[in-house]
Amino acid sequence: MDKRAIAALIDAHPPRTALDRAFYTDADIYERDISEIYLKSWLYAGHGSEIPAVGDWFLFELAGESVIIIRSSEDKIHALLNVCRHRGSKICLENRGRDRKLICRYHAWAYDLDGRLRGAAHMGEDFDKSGISLKNIHTEVLEGMIYVNFADQPAPFKPVRDALTECLRPYRLDAARVAHRQTYPINANWKLSVENYTECYHCVPSHPEYSRGHSLAKPEARSAKLMQEVMSRALTCGLSDKAVNRIYLDSEGFGADYAYERYPLWRGHITGSEDGQPVAPLMGDIKDYDGGTTDFQVGPVCFALAYCDYVVIYRFTPVSLHKSECDISWLVNGDAVEGEDFDKDRLVWLWDVTTAADKRIIEYNAEGVSSRYYEPGPLSEMEDYTWKYLSWYLQTIRP
Amino acid sequence: MDKRAIAALIDAHPPRTALDRAFYTDADIYERDISEIYLKSWLYAGHGSEIPAVGDWFLFELAGESVIIIRSSEDKIHALLNVCRHRGSKICLENRGRDRKLICRYHAWAYDLDGRLRGAAHMGEDFDKSGISLKNIHTEVLEGMIYVNFADQPAPFKPVRDALTECLRPYRLDAARVAHRQTYPINANWKLSVENYTECYHCVPSHPEYSRGHSLAKPEARSAKLMQEVMSRALTCGLSDKAVNRIYLDSEGFGADYAYERYPLWRGHITGSEDGQPVAPLMGDIKDYDGGTTDFQVGPVCFALAYCDYVVIYRFTPVSLHKSECDISWLVNGDAVEGEDFDKDRLVWLWDVTTAADKRIIEYNAEGVSSRYYEPGPLSEMEDYTWKYLSWYLQTIRP
Amino acid sequence: MDKRAIAALIDAHPPRTALDRAFYTDADIYERDISEIYLKSWLYAGHGSEIPAVGDWFLFELAGESVIIIRSSEDKIHALLNVCRHRGSKICLENRGRDRKLICRYHAWAYDLDGRLRGAAHMGEDFDKSGISLKNIHTEVLEGMIYVNFADQPAPFKPVRDALTECLRPYRLDAARVAHRQTYPINANWKLSVENYTECYHCVPSHPEYSRGHSLAKPEARSAKLMQEVMSRALTCGLSDKAVNRIYLDSEGFGADYAYERYPLWRGHITGSEDGQPVAPLMGDIKDYDGGTTDFQVGPVCFALAYCDYVVIYRFTPVSLHKSECDISWLVNGDAVEGEDFDKDRLVWLWDVTTAADKRIIEYNAEGVSSRYYEPGPLSEMEDYTWKYLSWYLQTIRP
Repeated sequence: MDKRAIAALIDAHPPRTALDRAFYTDADIYERDISEIYLKSWLYAGHGSEIPAVGDWFLFELAGESVIIIRSSEDKIHALLNVCRHRGSKICLENRGRDRKLICRYHAWAYDLDGRLRGAAHMGEDFDKSGISLKNIHTEVLEGMIYVNFADQPAPFKPVRDALTECLRPYRLDAARVAHRQTYPINANWKLSVENYTECYHCVPSHPEYSRGHSLAKPEARSAKLMQEVMSRALTCGLSDKAVNRIYLDSEGFGADYAYERYPLWRGHITGSEDGQPVAPLMGDIKDYDGGTTDFQVGPVCFALAYCDYVVIYRFTPVSLHKSECDISWLVNGDAVEGEDFDKDRLVWLWDVTTAADKRIIEYNAEGVSSRYYEPGPLSEMEDYTWKYLSWYLQTIRP
Repeated sequence: MDKRAIAALIDAHPPRTALDRAFYTDADIYERDISEIYLKSWLYAGHGSEIPAVGDWFLFELAGESVIIIRSSEDKIHALLNVCRHRGSKICLENRGRDRKLICRYHAWAYDLDGRLRGAAHMGEDFDKSGISLKNIHTEVLEGMIYVNFADQPAPFKPVRDALTECLRPYRLDAARVAHRQTYPINANWKLSVENYTECYHCVPSHPEYSRGHSLAKPEARSAKLMQEVMSRALTCGLSDKAVNRIYLDSEGFGADYAYERYPLWRGHITGSEDGQPVAPLMGDIKDYDGGTTDFQVGPVCFALAYCDYVVIYRFTPVSLHKSECDISWLVNGDAVEGEDFDKDRLVWLWDVTTAADKRIIEYNAEGVSSRYYEPGPLSEMEDYTWKYLSWYLQTIRP
Repeated sequence: MDKRAIAALIDAHPPRTALDRAFYTDADIYERDISEIYLKSWLYAGHGSEIPAVGDWFLFELAGESVIIIRSSEDKIHALLNVCRHRGSKICLENRGRDRKLICRYHAWAYDLDGRLRGAAHMGEDFDKSGISLKNIHTEVLEGMIYVNFADQPAPFKPVRDALTECLRPYRLDAARVAHRQTYPINANWKLSVENYTECYHCVPSHPEYSRGHSLAKPEARSAKLMQEVMSRALTCGLSDKAVNRIYLDSEGFGADYAYERYPLWRGHITGSEDGQPVAPLMGDIKDYDGGTTDFQVGPVCFALAYCDYVVIYRFTPVSLHKSECDISWLVNGDAVEGEDFDKDRLVWLWDVTTAADKRIIEYNAEGVSSRYYEPGPLSEMEDYTWKYLSWYLQTIRP
């Protein structure tokens, strides 16, 4: 679809309505999605505890790009394009590793941990290594969480940090560790995966496990009284009762969205688990369970849920036009020991079963929207967040 | 390939010649095949006996479209697009089922059996359900066989019904049942699959099992005397000796082709089976075996063979540019009991072995026509029907 | 990418630099690769010993084309397009076979061993078989090696024959036989496979097994003295010390490149094997091991290594944009008996392990060059041959 046709399609889009078929099936629109959204937004790459030692690295891969997230010194993390500057070979081949130098296996060009070229044989006398380096992309670390941005000049991360640091501090995420991380492949355009995350209209029909404990699933049943109770307990427990929301068209800088909001669990539930009871030790400086939970978001496609005993971080990325991935990290206190302080199966149960269900419904959604007879329908009152996301999406990729 | 190039290719096509490579490999031509042929023609969906009770349904899927064939009341069958009117999710997920309402698993929008929206939560006070319904496509039932048409205004089905009802009546297909149904995936453009069905030039080299009993395979060996014998017996047995043929460019309305013709089996064969002997009870009102068999056709891509003891219905559909499907239903008397009145393996043997062979040769044909050096060759005297089909095809998709 | 954009990309290409991403990912460039290079160059099809008897054939397949290499008489080999002249079916379906006639399985059109149509039933009285034949492509046999060319008027093969016959004669390849032949699928554009073959810059990092014995891997360590020693022994052993090199932009005719060069193995190695010791009887008229080996090349994408005891022939072909194949034949003396005169595992070891490693590094190269951030880098002094190949490539496909 050429640029004019894309712009016309966007201009004709009715408000509060699902996206047209073309947004899920057109290869040119997909390329705009990558260049205008993914290569310009702050994206969650992983957690500092995953690369504790100098030389530790893991790969972050999306839409055909591969980035080496590496600790180059005790307090410095780099994000390096995983593409040799000689003939373009991929350099790091496994998912994670530890190296003193990054050496391309093809012709043995060798790079320092910060990406600078150190060794390249047979290049002749005139060859100047000093100007050659693996491409560095921007990184920021917020409470231990590593965010990266491919843009040459990304929107500043400072507003995100300023807004979220205090709210998140009680969790001491900087001292947390990843108890489990899993990637769920989804056979659907990435937007269907994000749309699914942005609304809880589907929670009651699709997620009985989640809906048992989370009041987001039934906002109409939530009383002001319950909210008030939880918020006052939150403060006693050392948690923040602040709510911030600068997302999508309201974000302070492109791709630098942030939000933080605490809300009640149903009575009898104090965390997100099969029985509503704790699955890990209280996190950080939190003193007790307040009966609530927090949603937070950094950038347009990375979300998180912070319970009193664990935090789960979601990231949605495209793989190709009809494939995407949902990457989930479960974080617990850095000193919590698996088997003693927590049982991994219990810890991951809720969001594993919920994501498996989401994968299924997203994939059936993908089958449906590819029909020539699919007509985008009206959004419900529980899809406000989805419409915020969609309006931003349409404006962002408009040529 | 743009429209001008397609038109030029068609205008240059020599008579009685196979199709050019582009018709099997070009994505734009494929899209025209779908929009101009499949979405405007009468297509065999299945048989009423497959959905005996109210609320019974099965799916008919082709070229990325999914249709729910459902019995909404004792005497009414609907064909509903399997795409939710909210955000486009697929609604019915299995191949067949029985439901009192059709409920989308994503957000629980609920539809009546005729497709009308009945339930949709959280849509606000102004929301008017009454104008919203799953898209209904046209359906017709002929002697129990369900035909559907995606067109807004399809060619009338009445001429088909008028021409075929009397001929088919002795078989009492309205009281028949599907003893076996099977889909054969074929890695080839759908046209190669249909071409294969339209000629018996390949029967002698490729189908010894069929050629043993069917005189179509060797028309030069068929005597007028044999024909006469069978036709006179046909009338005695209660079968029609009529022949009708309004297909392709001669059809009364677009996509509403029909044909019916009876012809002799070789002496010693009275049905289509491994030994030429019966594999099921005589169908309907037929009194005895006359030594003949009937070919009939409804629409451009759905064919059938009616033996005295069973009827086999063929449907060819595209899946994607290089994939198609052959769907076959074997029908017997409604009261015939498997294991007592017929043996399923014996019943399906001939057309299973023949279709497996066809799949093979069609796929090798697909490999050949994708060569840059393939030159379409001249058609034989035994490919008259193929040329009828191809001339109609070329005229139909010409932009 | 349209022709103008391709030409502009080529005109902007800096010297001695790797290719731009588009050359590995663009479908239009790929089609030019096929039409301008593969369908106009001399390509190694196989060896005469693989089809010893009249009627013996094997298939040569590349980029969707299939060619029957068949012995039509004791001294004549044909290369026939494997596409029936009727409706385009593939005719020969296995990899190799022996037939008295080539009969299409679809409608039984029958062809002589030289491709002339002999039988076609039901074609009517006016049908003239005499003008119809499977398309023959050009073939040449050089010392038993069969080369083919799809072009209508290929560059003459005579210069290749004139230059190489004498050098190759001592090996008596015309009396050799294929002890093993294997195809290695490579998930990469064909050019990455050929680039890999054209340089030994990667040998030390990637091929320790090869680098142990072959001085090409460390040219800087090779003394003039070693060269002189081997060359003088070569003549005593009955081998040629000639070197010829008319490749790529220096070739005498398009796609008719040739090269022959002998060079030393490291001391202690007299052939290409795990321990540097012989793995088969001396070939042809060679009297003794001289401590050297020969590289030779015919056409742009077919290479060979001639050791004193065996010859290994490489051919690189595209399968599709992102898939290629490396086909390798190991030739030994025609009278050498497996299990007695040679052990097949020892014979194939070096080039099997080396090609498996190449497959791996080529595929990682393919992953890297598909990055939007890949920048083609400078070539080393050990990539002169690669640059010769790339300059010719760019000039050849320039629209």
